[in-house]
Amino acid sequence: MNGHEFDLWSQAQVAAVEAALERWVPSDAPAGLGQAMRYGVLDGGKRLRPLLVLASCDAVAGSVPAAMRAAVAVELIHAYSLVHDDMPCMDNDILRRGKPTVHVQYGQAQAMLAGDAMQALAFEVLTPEPGPGGAPEVAPVLQARLISLLARAAGHAGMAGGQAIDLASIGRPLDEGELRDMHRRKTGALLQASVLMGAACGDIRPEARDALSDYGAAIGLAFQVVDDILDVTQASETLGKTAGKDHDHNKPTYVSVLGLAAARSHAQALREQAHAALRRSGLGGAASLLAVLADKVVERES
Amino acid sequence: MNGHEFDLWSQAQVAAVEAALERWVPSDAPAGLGQAMRYGVLDGGKRLRPLLVLASCDAVAGSVPAAMRAAVAVELIHAYSLVHDDMPCMDNDILRRGKPTVHVQYGQAQAMLAGDAMQALAFEVLTPEPGPGGAPEVAPVLQARLISLLARAAGHAGMAGGQAIDLASIGRPLDEGELRDMHRRKTGALLQASVLMGAACGDIRPEARDALSDYGAAIGLAFQVVDDILDVTQASETLGKTAGKDHDHNKPTYVSVLGLAAARSHAQALREQAHAALRRSGLGGAASLLAVLADKVVERES
Repeated sequence: MNGHEFDLWSQAQVAAVEAALERWVPSDAPAGLGQAMRYGVLDGGKRLRPLLVLASCDAVAGSVPAAMRAAVAVELIHAYSLVHDDMPCMDNDILRRGKPTVHVQYGQAQAMLAGDAMQALAFEVLTPEPGPGGAPEVAPVLQARLISLLARAAGHAGMAGGQAIDLASIGRPLDEGELRDMHRRKTGALLQASVLMGAACGDIRPEARDALSDYGAAIGLAFQVVDDILDVTQASETLGKTAGKDHDHNKPTYVSVLGLAAARSHAQALREQAHAALRRSGLGGAASLLAVLADKVVERES
Repeated sequence: MNGHEFDLWSQAQVAAVEAALERWVPSDAPAGLGQAMRYGVLDGGKRLRPLLVLASCDAVAGSVPAAMRAAVAVELIHAYSLVHDDMPCMDNDILRRGKPTVHVQYGQAQAMLAGDAMQALAFEVLTPEPGPGGAPEVAPVLQARLISLLARAAGHAGMAGGQAIDLASIGRPLDEGELRDMHRRKTGALLQASVLMGAACGDIRPEARDALSDYGAAIGLAFQVVDDILDVTQASETLGKTAGKDHDHNKPTYVSVLGLAAARSHAQALREQAHAALRRSGLGGAASLLAVLADKVVERES
């Protein structure tokens, strides 16, 4: 697959994800809650997690309606985590995707509720009511599997646990192992779950699924290493969020622990690991979207 | 069923719920997150929602292991909502169940994360990994049904939506209809879902399920009316939380809208509605635990 073909695929998928978010995130929730939720998730972001779900589903020729629900659900979890993370008691950030953060726009209480409701909505989206014909849009056994993956990636052993380590690490030196453990949970768990959720939408041999799990772990970590690099090399305008904030907050990063050059080599090594895992999966050309995504994660500039 | 029989049943169920929470809420989550989660949910509360799940499951002779997971999940959602609701940007309360609130004990950031992780854990608990024999402890179709009920009750159309109305109502007069709508969502949705989750654990005719849904709606509202009455008639020591805070916060309550005497009559009328719904369900003596619970909700003094 060449870059142009990937771009066409990715633009179409992002448009479909935006349309699904537009449809499923309520505008009529009471007392402004729906508006705050929509502000927090519509119209922004690279939609990397949805793309991973959809590319992974494509690699196993899985159910596209199921994968679209998984894509939206994982993006809702990601978006809620940003809403809460930006609040004054956490990172206290006022700018996100080039716009005022949710609590700046709607107040802290509404931001907290919007995040809470976005998390619940992720699980609503994964349990669609049966359609008029009575047939479930997503088989219940697949609903249960997707929810199991997502809840574990979002919770204490995954994203929330990583954020707790992050909180505890401010101003305290971490070694590379501790930093990796933090990021495996904080960012990596949800990226890896995205890959596994997409794979769950089709039939896949256990060995291939394990290889995709390794792929997800490698790009999950690569994503964070690149984030840390961009935090020191890019301006806020390019990032759409406050640059240099990890340094300002005295947070350990891959750049502070390894140095810039070693962090860059590490990102390339993780890209290679991701490609090696795809070769090991035996999926061949079916995994070409995932292969390009690994490159995009490492080459991105914002 | 007499009061003594009910008390024996209820003590045994609460002990089983406590043991399940003890087992499923992690003590080893990173960086103190597990401790904050456990502090927020163990060792306190009346466990009314779990009792409703288990009594409703009993009425339909449903799967007890499934109902125990549903009971723990709904309690985790309830407990997380209290952790977030107590924070300074919401109700700013420092006392809960006679102890310092989670943010007082562990800081605001950890309290927010603990609440977030408790919500995710509720959905983890409802998607148990298959046991050693490979057989699922809860059938996937039931997992999906329980999650659908819980996520919708917790989210924008239910609890979180009710809290948003609550936020917007401070200092603004609500009429009885608006107050009812707020409480149907804020407290009622989760209590009603508890009843429906228990019923989903067994086989039940649609008409009986609809009657149990009406029962759940009636006691959901009764619970809140009684809460408002207790807020003005009881001391903080009895409640284990700050008394009079709704009045102090200038929040509309059933007492402020209807007056104390009419609020008391309303609670009794809702109790009668709950009993009438049970009679309509045709479950007869099988629903006797639910019948006693309706009385307990209205007669409670804390």
